[in-house]
Amino acid sequence: MRVGFLQFNPQLFHEKQNLNKISKMLQNCNTDLVVLPELCTSGYLFKSNIEMESLSSTADGRIPGFFKNISERENTAIVAGFLEKDEELFFNSQIFVAPSGNQVIYRKTHLFFNEKDLFSPGNSGFKIAHYNDAILGFMVCFDWIFPESARTLSLRGAEILCHSANLVLPFCQKAMITRSIENHVFTITSNRVGTETNGTQELTFTGMSQITDPSGNILVRADKTEEVLLVVDIDPEVARNKMITEKNHLFEDRRKEFYE
Amino acid sequence: MRVGFLQFNPQLFHEKQNLNKISKMLQNCNTDLVVLPELCTSGYLFKSNIEMESLSSTADGRIPGFFKNISERENTAIVAGFLEKDEELFFNSQIFVAPSGNQVIYRKTHLFFNEKDLFSPGNSGFKIAHYNDAILGFMVCFDWIFPESARTLSLRGAEILCHSANLVLPFCQKAMITRSIENHVFTITSNRVGTETNGTQELTFTGMSQITDPSGNILVRADKTEEVLLVVDIDPEVARNKMITEKNHLFEDRRKEFYE
Repeated sequence: MRVGFLQFNPQLFHEKQNLNKISKMLQNCNTDLVVLPELCTSGYLFKSNIEMESLSSTADGRIPGFFKNISERENTAIVAGFLEKDEELFFNSQIFVAPSGNQVIYRKTHLFFNEKDLFSPGNSGFKIAHYNDAILGFMVCFDWIFPESARTLSLRGAEILCHSANLVLPFCQKAMITRSIENHVFTITSNRVGTETNGTQELTFTGMSQITDPSGNILVRADKTEEVLLVVDIDPEVARNKMITEKNHLFEDRRKEFYE
Repeated sequence: MRVGFLQFNPQLFHEKQNLNKISKMLQNCNTDLVVLPELCTSGYLFKSNIEMESLSSTADGRIPGFFKNISERENTAIVAGFLEKDEELFFNSQIFVAPSGNQVIYRKTHLFFNEKDLFSPGNSGFKIAHYNDAILGFMVCFDWIFPESARTLSLRGAEILCHSANLVLPFCQKAMITRSIENHVFTITSNRVGTETNGTQELTFTGMSQITDPSGNILVRADKTEEVLLVVDIDPEVARNKMITEKNHLFEDRRKEFYE
């Protein structure tokens, strides 16, 4: 299975430009699955819901339609963060679309810092999707710091954690290695690069998007600034076997009676 | 608070030699708390319960008595792994003793590989202890790979995770950085060094004992082979504040309704 991430620099408020870049960078991508960053069609540093309004999309609207088209065009599944609006609520969401038309929307469970003033906490719960004999799990950015996110997805069968991010600190990339090891899964973290400012605040995103295997090896990692599509071949079946020694099954060895 | 670890090379079957070394290396240690490796009085690579019999001790027996004496002599709390026997059962246990006489026994929850043939799975559950205005939590070696271990201890208030280990792989030291960050706690991993053989199996332990702070910084780390006592000053109160941004409380932000 050929999986990859697209690391790039979305421009705040410039949806058309962002969609064009995504479309171009994914041309002939020759992947089965590609993961894009959090909020990658809109940018990140909004100050108000008014600013977010025109950039938002419903789950069957403009942005999901765009990714569906690219998915069909390139015959690849796509996972991408986008700004979802549902009734009067805004969600920091992630869409999965497959060439078959299968679509899943995950709404970020754990909001970070000022996102709490702009978004509603995700109400979808953690989601998985069956795709090409593999099971994918979905998570967005700050979900990483809660081990329960990756754990919940993995216990539900996820073999590849698709992680869309806008990271400003460097801890997460290392922590995702631990997430791989403790759940014996692949992880694909697609982080953005570049600097955004909204007049009162400035953020520089840390790139270093990466793919890890169930043993915690980094299969590929981008640098801190490049815009790039990186792809590797993986065998998701490796993540299905939770026997990490002849006598240790990573999930059956859990002793839930002793956990908080 | 002055906390440290003792990294050394216990000799299989040579209890007297091991106790002498511990006693000498802790002379005038000038610590408030020092953590020792897993099974540090007996060695690790037993082949049968018969071999373990004479090296084992009850919770009020010879080995706890030894650590109690050292604790009083040096006026420091001690956490150390030892071979416990209770009725007919052997446990891979960890003792905490304070100069006050307070004692806690934790029995390793998650047994690794051949330990399953020799030890009973711990039945104590995860334990904490109040000590000098701080709260300690206890874990042994392979407990590290289950995020629920550190999580459970931290949710119960532990600010310093005292981790006694006999590690043969290098993943854990990195993962303990993640354990620090995801729980905003200090961790002290005391790993042993040296090589043990029992005729059919040989193990080399990886050292690199370390102390991490709640932000995931490594405050001190030993190398792969040295026998050494390393000590740092920490402020456990740092671990008490779980606000990792102005708007994010690491524990109150948990959304248990969505976790498996």
